[in-house]
Amino acid sequence: MTNTTPEMQRLYGPVTSDLPRVSAQIHSIAQNVGFEFLQRMLETALAGTGKMMRPAIALLAGRLGVYDLDRLVPLAASVELLHTATLVHDDVIDRAEERRGEPTPNALFGNAASVMLGDYMFAHAADFIAQTDNTQVVRVFAKTLMTIAKGELTQDITVFEYSADVQRYLDRIIGKTASLFGTAAQGGAMVAGASAEQVEAMRLYGLRLGIAFQIVDDILDFTGDPAVMGKPAGSDLQGGTLTLPAILYMQRHLDDNPVKKAFEGVRRKANLDRAIREILASGTIDESMAVARQFGSEAREALATLPPGETRETLDGLIDYVMTRRS
Amino acid sequence: MTNTTPEMQRLYGPVTSDLPRVSAQIHSIAQNVGFEFLQRMLETALAGTGKMMRPAIALLAGRLGVYDLDRLVPLAASVELLHTATLVHDDVIDRAEERRGEPTPNALFGNAASVMLGDYMFAHAADFIAQTDNTQVVRVFAKTLMTIAKGELTQDITVFEYSADVQRYLDRIIGKTASLFGTAAQGGAMVAGASAEQVEAMRLYGLRLGIAFQIVDDILDFTGDPAVMGKPAGSDLQGGTLTLPAILYMQRHLDDNPVKKAFEGVRRKANLDRAIREILASGTIDESMAVARQFGSEAREALATLPPGETRETLDGLIDYVMTRRS
Repeated sequence: MTNTTPEMQRLYGPVTSDLPRVSAQIHSIAQNVGFEFLQRMLETALAGTGKMMRPAIALLAGRLGVYDLDRLVPLAASVELLHTATLVHDDVIDRAEERRGEPTPNALFGNAASVMLGDYMFAHAADFIAQTDNTQVVRVFAKTLMTIAKGELTQDITVFEYSADVQRYLDRIIGKTASLFGTAAQGGAMVAGASAEQVEAMRLYGLRLGIAFQIVDDILDFTGDPAVMGKPAGSDLQGGTLTLPAILYMQRHLDDNPVKKAFEGVRRKANLDRAIREILASGTIDESMAVARQFGSEAREALATLPPGETRETLDGLIDYVMTRRS
Repeated sequence: MTNTTPEMQRLYGPVTSDLPRVSAQIHSIAQNVGFEFLQRMLETALAGTGKMMRPAIALLAGRLGVYDLDRLVPLAASVELLHTATLVHDDVIDRAEERRGEPTPNALFGNAASVMLGDYMFAHAADFIAQTDNTQVVRVFAKTLMTIAKGELTQDITVFEYSADVQRYLDRIIGKTASLFGTAAQGGAMVAGASAEQVEAMRLYGLRLGIAFQIVDDILDFTGDPAVMGKPAGSDLQGGTLTLPAILYMQRHLDDNPVKKAFEGVRRKANLDRAIREILASGTIDESMAVARQFGSEAREALATLPPGETRETLDGLIDYVMTRRS
C-alpha cells in the first residue's frame, strides 16, 4: 500500500491526500481472491506500484472540472493497474528476471501463469474504468492498450536491429509510455467534464510529459547508479534495444561501430562494453537530454490554456521533476 | 469472413441474417492495422472464428427487448473476440501447436508476439463492448475475463494432477467456457433493456448451455473422429487434463489405475493408451452425456419464463444441437 511521503506532497500537491484511496482500490484486487496462488501473484505484481505519478496526473486533471472522487479514484486506479498489467506481460516477453531489483512474476511463478495474471489484471482495470460510468473513457483506454501492445510488439520484433532512427524510437516510447500518460491526463479531464479544449490540452500535456519521462528513463539506463536502478548500466543496449543516446551515437559513427558488431554477434561483450563507454563520452547523453527538455517545454505549452492556480502549477512542477530525477 | 450457411439458418433462425455484420466488425480489426506483422497475426487468429454460436446467442437474447443492432452487433462481436483472444493466450500457455487442425498463432509467430496479439485483441474487445454505451455491460464482461483467466490458471496449475473431482471440473469448465456463454446471453438481454428477470433467465440459460457444451466437447475428445476434430483421441488426457469421462473412470478404479501411473510418469504412453481404451469401454462416456443432458434440461427450465415464440424456440433448439453435435 502506498503511504504518501513528503516528496509526494511536494510533487502532487492538492491531490496527494486522495492517493491512498487510489492505492487502496488497486490493492483491493489482491484481497478475497479465494485462490491463494493467484493472490500471491497479485501481491508480487502490485508491490511494484510506487510513486503513483500516473494516478496523480489523472486526479490533477480531474480538478479542471467536477472533482468527483467516486469516478476519479477508479479512473486513476485503472491507469496504474493497466500500467502494471502491461509490465507483467512485458517481463514475460522480455524474459526479464528482475524489475527494479525485485524478481518479476514470471521469474517467481513462470511464464504461463504470468500471462494469465496479466489478463486478470487487465480485466480488473476494465472493471475499474467502467466505474467512471463513461463509455467514451472506456474507449480511450481500450485504444491506449492497443497502442501499448503494438509498441511492445514493435520493440520485440526489432530487438538487435541496429537500423533504428529517432522517429521510430519516438513512436516506440509513445506506445510504451507516453500514450498512457496522455490517457491518464485526458481521462481525468473527461471524467470531470472539462471542456473539449482542456481535455485535448491535458492529452497533449500527458503525451509530451510521457515522452520526456521515457527519454530521461533511457538516459538513466546509461548514467544512473546501478545500485539505485537495480540493473547494470547500459542494460537496454545489452538486451538489444537501441534508445536515444545509442541511436544518436550510431548516426555519428557509421564505421567501426561496436553496437553494429555486437548486434551481429561479433565479440558481443567486448563490443557492448566499448559501446557504452563511447556513448557516455560522445555527448549524445546531453543531446538526448536536450530532446527531453524540448518535449518538456512543449508539455508546458499545452498547459498555457489552463487557468492559473494550484492545479496548473502542480502539473508544471511535474515537468521539472521529470527532467531532474535521478532514478 | 463468415458466410451464413443453411445449417446456421436452421440453428440461429431470426438472427442469422445479422451475423455477417457481426463477422464484419470482428474482421475489421485486421484491416488498416498499418503494421503488416500484426495484421498477419490477426488474420491467423480470426480465421478460427467459425460457427458464431456465442454471437448468435447474444443477438437472440437481444430480441427480448429493443433489438438495436448498433449496440447488439458490437456486443456480439466483443463476445466472439474475447473468446478468440483467450484462445490465443491459452495456446501460448498450453504450448499448443494446432487448434482444429490449423497451426496456432504461437506456432507460427512465437510466444512473445502471441501474448501481445492477445492483448491487442482484448483491447479491441473492450472497445467494442464500450460501443454498447452501457458501463454495466462492460463490467459484466470484465468480470467474465477474470473468471476465464482464473479458470485457465487453475487448469495450468493442476495439470497432471490426478485428484480432480467433479465439482472442481465443473468450476473449471464454467471458467473456461460457460461463463462467456452466460455473458453473451445476459449481455444481449441487458443491452436490449429486457427485464431483470429475463436478464437473469438468459444468464442461467447461457451458463447451463455452456456447461453442457463443454462436457460434450470433452466427450468428443474421446469419441470424435480424429480427422474431423483435428486432434488424436484422448488428447486432453495426453496433455494431463482430466475431463469428466476420465474423472468418473478414476473414481471407479482406485487401484491399478493407468491414469495415475501415466501422470506419475510410469510408462506414460502405454498407460495412457490403456486408459483411453478403458474409459471408452467403461460406460463413463454415457454417464458424462447424462450429466450434460441434465444441464441441458436446466438450460431449458431457464427459458420457461420467456414468452413463447421464435426467439425462445430458437434458443431451445440450440440445446438440442449442443447435445447431438458430432464435432
